Amino acid sequence: MSAVHSLQSPTVSLSYNQATPGRRLERIAGLSDGVFAIVMTLIVLEIHVPDAGPIRSEQDLWNALLGLGPRLVTYFLSFLTLGIFWNGQQTQLNLFGSADRDLTWLQLAFLATVALLPFSTSLLAEFITYRLALLAYWANIFLIGLLLYLNWLYATRTGLITKEATPAVSAAITRRIFVGQSLYAFGAVLSIVSPLLSIAFIVFVQLNFAIAPKIPILSRV
Amino acid sequence: MSAVHSLQSPTVSLSYNQATPGRRLERIAGLSDGVFAIVMTLIVLEIHVPDAGPIRSEQDLWNALLGLGPRLVTYFLSFLTLGIFWNGQQTQLNLFGSADRDLTWLQLAFLATVALLPFSTSLLAEFITYRLALLAYWANIFLIGLLLYLNWLYATRTGLITKEATPAVSAAITRRIFVGQSLYAFGAVLSIVSPLLSIAFIVFVQLNFAIAPKIPILSRV
Amino acid sequence: MSAVHSLQSPTVSLSYNQATPGRRLERIAGLSDGVFAIVMTLIVLEIHVPDAGPIRSEQDLWNALLGLGPRLVTYFLSFLTLGIFWNGQQTQLNLFGSADRDLTWLQLAFLATVALLPFSTSLLAEFITYRLALLAYWANIFLIGLLLYLNWLYATRTGLITKEATPAVSAAITRRIFVGQSLYAFGAVLSIVSPLLSIAFIVFVQLNFAIAPKIPILSRV
Amino acid sequence: MSAVHSLQSPTVSLSYNQATPGRRLERIAGLSDGVFAIVMTLIVLEIHVPDAGPIRSEQDLWNALLGLGPRLVTYFLSFLTLGIFWNGQQTQLNLFGSADRDLTWLQLAFLATVALLPFSTSLLAEFITYRLALLAYWANIFLIGLLLYLNWLYATRTGLITKEATPAVSAAITRRIFVGQSLYAFGAVLSIVSPLLSIAFIVFVQLNFAIAPKIPILSRV
Repeated sequence: MSAVHSLQSPTVSLSYNQATPGRRLERIAGLSDGVFAIVMTLIVLEIHVPDAGPIRSEQDLWNALLGLGPRLVTYFLSFLTLGIFWNGQQTQLNLFGSADRDLTWLQLAFLATVALLPFSTSLLAEFITYRLALLAYWANIFLIGLLLYLNWLYATRTGLITKEATPAVSAAITRRIFVGQSLYAFGAVLSIVSPLLSIAFIVFVQLNFAIAPKIPILSRV
Repeated sequence: MSAVHSLQSPTVSLSYNQATPGRRLERIAGLSDGVFAIVMTLIVLEIHVPDAGPIRSEQDLWNALLGLGPRLVTYFLSFLTLGIFWNGQQTQLNLFGSADRDLTWLQLAFLATVALLPFSTSLLAEFITYRLALLAYWANIFLIGLLLYLNWLYATRTGLITKEATPAVSAAITRRIFVGQSLYAFGAVLSIVSPLLSIAFIVFVQLNFAIAPKIPILSRV
Repeated sequence: MSAVHSLQSPTVSLSYNQATPGRRLERIAGLSDGVFAIVMTLIVLEIHVPDAGPIRSEQDLWNALLGLGPRLVTYFLSFLTLGIFWNGQQTQLNLFGSADRDLTWLQLAFLATVALLPFSTSLLAEFITYRLALLAYWANIFLIGLLLYLNWLYATRTGLITKEATPAVSAAITRRIFVGQSLYAFGAVLSIVSPLLSIAFIVFVQLNFAIAPKIPILSRV
Repeated sequence: MSAVHSLQSPTVSLSYNQATPGRRLERIAGLSDGVFAIVMTLIVLEIHVPDAGPIRSEQDLWNALLGLGPRLVTYFLSFLTLGIFWNGQQTQLNLFGSADRDLTWLQLAFLATVALLPFSTSLLAEFITYRLALLAYWANIFLIGLLLYLNWLYATRTGLITKEATPAVSAAITRRIFVGQSLYAFGAVLSIVSPLLSIAFIVFVQLNFAIAPKIPILSRV
């Protein structure tokens, strides 16, 4: 995209687009916190309270609540997903020194894929035994990860990162995204065997990102 | 509006309305990030998960997901719209030195038109082949753009802008709004031929704003 | 409430409740911006897209959209209400020097009444010719104004305000709330004649707050 | 968890996870304000406007509104709950000097339990005479309190707190959580007698936290 930019008529675009890089990162962080907060809260709305009509005893209500199991699993799964990518984006934002217009749009594209997660989550909860629902969910995670990677790639190539973002840090960030996405892809392939096995594997991978257990091979991720 | 203000009884209004201009811009930015974040997330909610009732196979689910196409197009369209105007408002806010009460209300009016976008988007997705739905959507974009322009006009006329807002920058901001709105209006006129052609044109215009391709005539926008 | 506090066992409560007054105002502002942004956006959701079933022509859609008139009026009304009280709270927050626990709870109570507005708005839109719906809406505005006043009263009595909050400013803030609430109450009484007249009057009062026209008697409000 | 961390391969994880502790607390506060603001607003959405169909007079509407009583009680209850825990989290965040990855995840887990509150609230409102609904609501409050405690425990053990967090302050924070949770648990046990009595008791305990009346035994809480 930087190549594209250099071909633009410089005077007009520059005066408009690069007038105020100063507070952009702050506003991106504010917008992102808003989007993540809303998505984290909306995915709960998919856990519908049982219909009061057919419920006549505590036992009926208990059975109805047990039926919400798949919804709770997908809520838990999506909250982990959101936490992982919120952390990932935060790490990058803290290493950015400034933002130009293209980076802003890459961040917006990242948020657009995050905002799709309530739909994917709901689809998976409604069709939890369908391979296609699992693949759609995985495609959403893949897109979020892809855009997170593209943001980092663009920022490093155009020199928008700070000195703290040493080559070692940059390599760790890139490796983390690639290893994570490889594991998610493997999880998606597992849906050939069973969608439920696939979900279990993805939850396991995400818990590893979140609580970092001492399994040696995974702690390097 | 400044003329209106000067006719007010000065002591009371001034002591109340101009007591604390300091943190106003910060609060406007915070409120705006919240409104944009929510609208960006709500437009996804229009992409409803298919009803589980009639779906009995992976093939059924696939067909049902294909039927969501118009919703995905309008989601994509509205996210681009929101990104463009979020960027536009941010550019202005960064060039404002302070805010008075009238500017605050112009900003609130701008947010009121932004908050209408989930309705327009949903209307367009539900009636994507209807000219009236397209015109209502265009009217919404027009209102957002109009208020963005009025904000800039008011701020420049009352001296609320900083020194960084040179006449060249101001001209670029105004030109950008006018060229953009002219292209949107042309897209709306295209709905006489076909609402779908009209949507395709507007998406094309917005992609130009977002990724700035190297088509010479458009890169000047 | 300060009298209440002085009767508490001082050591425990003080060490817990007054440990960190520093960033409280900032967090209250952040929470408030979030609540206002969500409420501003949610009231739009009451404008439902017409059901596609019975609509077969552009003319049908046009008629259906005309039927949304009351919803648009109540949206406009509530957005004005929110803007007025957002401005009112902001003015106060900027004049507060710090916040204690009681002020924090008074602010939360204020937000609780603001969060009720989507319900009142929806009730009014659904039953726009019913006096009771208008009175419920007015009661909500009254509660918001009452809590705004209680916040100011508490802050001035406990010395939480800054030096900029001179007696003249304080008198202007109090007068503004009282005059506004008197006008709203008069509007509510008008519902005896006609709920629609009542709404028209309240919209007129709010427009006066927002755009401050040059009618001498009202510009002093 | 710190023990777990020390067993990880140090170079990669450290370079990634500890690269940017600086703005973490600020982002956590921003995300938290967003989640609390949305939850505070969503719980109102459970108060549904009466269906217009069977309502033909002011009296009908009045009766329909009276039927919303349980919803209003649960709204009031949940708003108090949210206020108490927003205050509790804020107190802790202000006493944290920095955040590491584990603390960030503990904060996210705290927010995940907060985000469940609209579901619990709605369940309680729909089944207000059922013991199971009350226990589910209590379990949610218990989980929020547990995670608030775990956050404090982790931060004090790993030295992430500031000097202002003296042992006396830390003891007060811990005591407050324990006393509060004991009272909630007692309230839950009361549901054996009657779910409504149980709700009344919990509301009473929460009002004590919020307005701190001068009942000597409770003012020490």
